[in-house]
Amino acid sequence: MDKHIGKQSIRFQNPPVIVSVSSVAGPKEGEGPLGSRMDRVSQDILLGKETWEKAESEYVRQGIELAVEKSGLPLSGIQYILAGDLLNQAIGTSFGVRSLQRPFLGLFGACSTIGEAMMLGAALVDGGFADYVAASASSHFCSAEKTFRFPLELGSQRPPTASWTVTGGGAMIIGAPEAEPGRYGACEECPRVTAATTGKIVDMGIKDANNMGAAMAPAAADVLTRHFEDLNIRPEEYDVIATGDLGHFGREILFRLMLEAGYDISGNTTDCGIEIFDRDQQDTHAGGSGCACAAVTFAAYFYPQLCSKRIKKFLLVPTGALMNSTTVQQGESIPAIAHAVRIEAGGV
Amino acid sequence: MDKHIGKQSIRFQNPPVIVSVSSVAGPKEGEGPLGSRMDRVSQDILLGKETWEKAESEYVRQGIELAVEKSGLPLSGIQYILAGDLLNQAIGTSFGVRSLQRPFLGLFGACSTIGEAMMLGAALVDGGFADYVAASASSHFCSAEKTFRFPLELGSQRPPTASWTVTGGGAMIIGAPEAEPGRYGACEECPRVTAATTGKIVDMGIKDANNMGAAMAPAAADVLTRHFEDLNIRPEEYDVIATGDLGHFGREILFRLMLEAGYDISGNTTDCGIEIFDRDQQDTHAGGSGCACAAVTFAAYFYPQLCSKRIKKFLLVPTGALMNSTTVQQGESIPAIAHAVRIEAGGV
Repeated sequence: MDKHIGKQSIRFQNPPVIVSVSSVAGPKEGEGPLGSRMDRVSQDILLGKETWEKAESEYVRQGIELAVEKSGLPLSGIQYILAGDLLNQAIGTSFGVRSLQRPFLGLFGACSTIGEAMMLGAALVDGGFADYVAASASSHFCSAEKTFRFPLELGSQRPPTASWTVTGGGAMIIGAPEAEPGRYGACEECPRVTAATTGKIVDMGIKDANNMGAAMAPAAADVLTRHFEDLNIRPEEYDVIATGDLGHFGREILFRLMLEAGYDISGNTTDCGIEIFDRDQQDTHAGGSGCACAAVTFAAYFYPQLCSKRIKKFLLVPTGALMNSTTVQQGESIPAIAHAVRIEAGGV
Repeated sequence: MDKHIGKQSIRFQNPPVIVSVSSVAGPKEGEGPLGSRMDRVSQDILLGKETWEKAESEYVRQGIELAVEKSGLPLSGIQYILAGDLLNQAIGTSFGVRSLQRPFLGLFGACSTIGEAMMLGAALVDGGFADYVAASASSHFCSAEKTFRFPLELGSQRPPTASWTVTGGGAMIIGAPEAEPGRYGACEECPRVTAATTGKIVDMGIKDANNMGAAMAPAAADVLTRHFEDLNIRPEEYDVIATGDLGHFGREILFRLMLEAGYDISGNTTDCGIEIFDRDQQDTHAGGSGCACAAVTFAAYFYPQLCSKRIKKFLLVPTGALMNSTTVQQGESIPAIAHAVRIEAGGV
């Protein structure tokens, strides 16, 4: 069986299973529509730490440890941690996983990171290189604002297209389907990662760092079109397609771009950034964003529906903007990327 | 055949081959001992660009394009680009690969990045997910100084333990051994990636950002010890072991740590940061560093010796320091990581 299909996609031979997931989130996320579904909501956005960066690392550590705990595996059974975040030099992750003492593969895909981690993690498992891996992504509203926008103390006004970085860490344990069956704690028949399409960088010339949705929508459209063509399927095959953090404005652009490409995805497509906050009640403008957005929303909201088979075929499309404050200052446009990961309910 | 062996290592079933390599470097690297072996040396450290960051992206692009060109493959034959750099949000890489339009997997392992890219790239190939991938890493002296230390305009004095960030980009094409044989331009029998050991984060409490060698040496010792134990071999089996960028001081620490662990590696171990500059003539203090250091030195110096079978068994151990300027300011110590990639001459 050929594992790579079409131009940018792979189909897993023995689809790896998502054994367990975790969602550890901050206070604002706890007040949102998915708050009651989160594994853990902290009232203290600093988690008792002295800086936002140290708090983010704590979200990373707690998220991975909780996913491991829920899997029933010992930490030593995790052969690789694949993880990343938004901060300079990915310090949220490095300092978060430092104490875990597992082989570490650091990733950077901005807010698309959890998609990259799932694709690479599933490939390591399906390729026979690991029985279990952890995939994780994190972000923190305060550390992200500091890194990408303005000091929080300025109280800068946010335009309607601005998104709100999710504070939290989401993790999952991906394992070989035949490895020690029966140990899985999360559900009897675990959802499986069956295919993935890896994105190219798409840059349509958007330069507004307060309109990430517009910068990322073309990347999402590109990888979705490629996914449908490579797998020779129609979008209707999916019960739900969830983009990462396009938000309200980016989603509208995506729908238009997909219609131009011949696909109407408006009936079954949502966005993690739209699901995680209540736009009207929470003043989050375009929606949630950040590496944790897709990771936490998948763990808290979509994974349980895959376990209960309420969703049978699901496509997660985390989206990332690959700029930094220096490139914005140097007048560069915003390159974006998105990856599509297909997850199917077990035993279907 | 079980592909994972011991605690942190994998052995490739059909060892992927390194089809071609490229080394594109700056003026100082061109004046060093390996200058005449580089594929391309630029006299202009800006490569005609207006900023250091844009120059670094140009090194990335040229490096990957040249490796592809030398492989004889069309760019469309490269199924994944796995790459990273030292800059905030890895912009050197994102903007460098933007125009190449290939599926992109961004990595962050600081100066260990090329090791991570080789391990993951070889796993994607050996796992059947790709026929050819590109692995790349880059760094730039000026953009790195600006990011991690002081503005260059200050002319700050450098302590003896400080290293000199290599300016350049190094890339390689890794392919399946049976994929279209005879097309390889680099050598008749390509060197093969036969095994890899993925490192854990090691933090021994070093806080001096001007002494990276001391921070990284324990990580190198950890992964080397693990590699020897997992593969049940002695260091003497290798013709050459080359660490990434420990430099003169870090190498001495590594030798002592390895002796304590029962391994004398002083007879066959060098360091890419030591090879790439002439310490006495070039005022580079502890030696070269940066993501490009191991990538460019491997491509220009070790790969040709593997092709000519002057070196038959080689272990590349790129080392990375996972801190940033914020963590240093917040009083954190420097976590480090190293990965060991085993490369053997073809047809041996």
